[in-house]
Amino acid sequence: MALAMLTRQALRAGSLCSRAAASRPAKVVVGRAPVAQRFLAVVGAAPKGKTPPPPPPQEPDLDDDLGEGDEEDYYDPMEELNTAQRRRVLAMKEVQRLYDGLQREYQAELAQLQSKYNAKYAPLYDERRELFSGKKAVTDKFDLEDDGEPDGPIPDFWLNALANHNKIGPFITERDSEVLKYLEDIRSEVLVGEERGFKLTFHFKADNPHFTNSVLEKVYLLEPEDDVVPKAFTGTVINWKEGRDVTVEEQKRRVKAPKGDKSKPAFVVEKVPCDSLFTIFDPPKVPTEADAANMSEEELEEVEDALSNDFEIGFAIKDQVIPRAVEWFTGEIAPLSPEDYDDEYEEGEY
Amino acid sequence: MALAMLTRQALRAGSLCSRAAASRPAKVVVGRAPVAQRFLAVVGAAPKGKTPPPPPPQEPDLDDDLGEGDEEDYYDPMEELNTAQRRRVLAMKEVQRLYDGLQREYQAELAQLQSKYNAKYAPLYDERRELFSGKKAVTDKFDLEDDGEPDGPIPDFWLNALANHNKIGPFITERDSEVLKYLEDIRSEVLVGEERGFKLTFHFKADNPHFTNSVLEKVYLLEPEDDVVPKAFTGTVINWKEGRDVTVEEQKRRVKAPKGDKSKPAFVVEKVPCDSLFTIFDPPKVPTEADAANMSEEELEEVEDALSNDFEIGFAIKDQVIPRAVEWFTGEIAPLSPEDYDDEYEEGEY
Repeated sequence: MALAMLTRQALRAGSLCSRAAASRPAKVVVGRAPVAQRFLAVVGAAPKGKTPPPPPPQEPDLDDDLGEGDEEDYYDPMEELNTAQRRRVLAMKEVQRLYDGLQREYQAELAQLQSKYNAKYAPLYDERRELFSGKKAVTDKFDLEDDGEPDGPIPDFWLNALANHNKIGPFITERDSEVLKYLEDIRSEVLVGEERGFKLTFHFKADNPHFTNSVLEKVYLLEPEDDVVPKAFTGTVINWKEGRDVTVEEQKRRVKAPKGDKSKPAFVVEKVPCDSLFTIFDPPKVPTEADAANMSEEELEEVEDALSNDFEIGFAIKDQVIPRAVEWFTGEIAPLSPEDYDDEYEEGEY
Repeated sequence: MALAMLTRQALRAGSLCSRAAASRPAKVVVGRAPVAQRFLAVVGAAPKGKTPPPPPPQEPDLDDDLGEGDEEDYYDPMEELNTAQRRRVLAMKEVQRLYDGLQREYQAELAQLQSKYNAKYAPLYDERRELFSGKKAVTDKFDLEDDGEPDGPIPDFWLNALANHNKIGPFITERDSEVLKYLEDIRSEVLVGEERGFKLTFHFKADNPHFTNSVLEKVYLLEPEDDVVPKAFTGTVINWKEGRDVTVEEQKRRVKAPKGDKSKPAFVVEKVPCDSLFTIFDPPKVPTEADAANMSEEELEEVEDALSNDFEIGFAIKDQVIPRAVEWFTGEIAPLSPEDYDDEYEEGEY
């Protein structure tokens, strides 16, 4: 039912919408090799509409070596090569290093190009802010009949734009949404110095009762050869006002009474981390190869999930929400309406 | 078990590997609005490590309007706005059109930049081809002791490179792999004229017994504002030699004997389409809004899956396999070994 409903909505919304959503995807590959490889496995989804796909071809003469469950016996084409051929592979790897050098130059030029266009987009983003904040008068009637209601800002513009994005909305809690009502603007900046990556800047209204910062920044540093390999993520420390920190919740914990004291056990109230979009401002460290070797499967997976979600959120804000915020606000390029989210969960599709 | 094995493999492979895989992801949004919106839903995966995520926030005063199962009652922030505010939204949409114009200019400049770097990469790709094909002598011993075996080409270089990629390998059938043994090189080209997009060129060896073409081309035309929105895909018509077409299989079909003829029922042999990587050279048409309206759910989903897989394959070849083919060949940046594929399927994780 969710699918059928979605299509009808899409068709209806489509009549408003002159073009499709910009959708640059955001998959994370952590910079250090072993983690990166697990990441590729984590993000590598099954091909759509084909289950199960056939395994990749194996050389027939290798079949004997592929004892299932024997971790040493995995397919390695290098093992089939003689010394002269192995030298050819190593020579190709030297060529690959030359490619890497050119690729770093390309990424630097790309950052310059993107920065040049960001400067061209900025006046349009300024004008958009003047429009949704109610500061700039709109003289065109757009063929709409007056309803006598007063002009004014569009409420919760950014909250709705973010919530309608299927990579971001699911991370916004009820408590987050109270804070995001005070979000005034989001901008992005491409790093053009020695480092590759981008910075998001979140501007909050002066009357925000939740924290004292007027601007929160989030920086995504990426590996210099490739704009999808995380190097380090950093965020502004948020100065939450008393009792307003939405990234923690208070839990009572029973504490043992001192020996001999038979009175009722006492409780302490502790602040424990909880789900919140604002956790992206305190991201985990990107693990190095050495870090990864010292982590358990579960720890590694947890960090990878956190980084992967964080990067997807950052990428979606930079490449999709900021450039077309009005269309995310109206929902015309939003993939799912709130009921569809509910339906999907009920049907266990997530 | 698959996960633990994968990590150990990754760590082992990591020692060979000085950097992580380039992994630009490839999600498809079909160009026409309604299809695009369904696409976003199809490709919109659940956040990693969070099930189920909370639904996006709803304005409290809208709750009464959100009757579940009523397809007309989906959340539309526009309905909450008065006329003056709606005019603000429409004014923002006019600003959005100005953004689209700049974005088209950006995509054209980006294509120029990529084309400039493709020209710089070409000599490195030439040298790589000379190395794996055995044409160029390798004088460096790379500290490997001679084993007395003769020098020669590296067998099945491209077949292995493609098969090791988790977005491509699953589409390569046993019959495809026989054809791909004759694949000599793959190159990509960025379109820099009026159209946006890219072209892949597959060069086959002269002794290929499967078809007469020496070169197969695949063109991915994309929407001018955005390099991830398909406009049209086209491929070279393959001149298969008799009985060699791997995109069809022969099936016997019983045919009714003519009336009155009591002899045994006859069979006809029919060629029916089957799975093959080579189906990307005969891709489905990207449906227009009008097409989509006339298609059933199932038809639409089938076309979307085919286009989505096709685009992911093309993107992966262009951005991942061609730039780092030697690392895909050795498997050092491959996410899964053949046994892991098997394990995953057995465990029903796909």
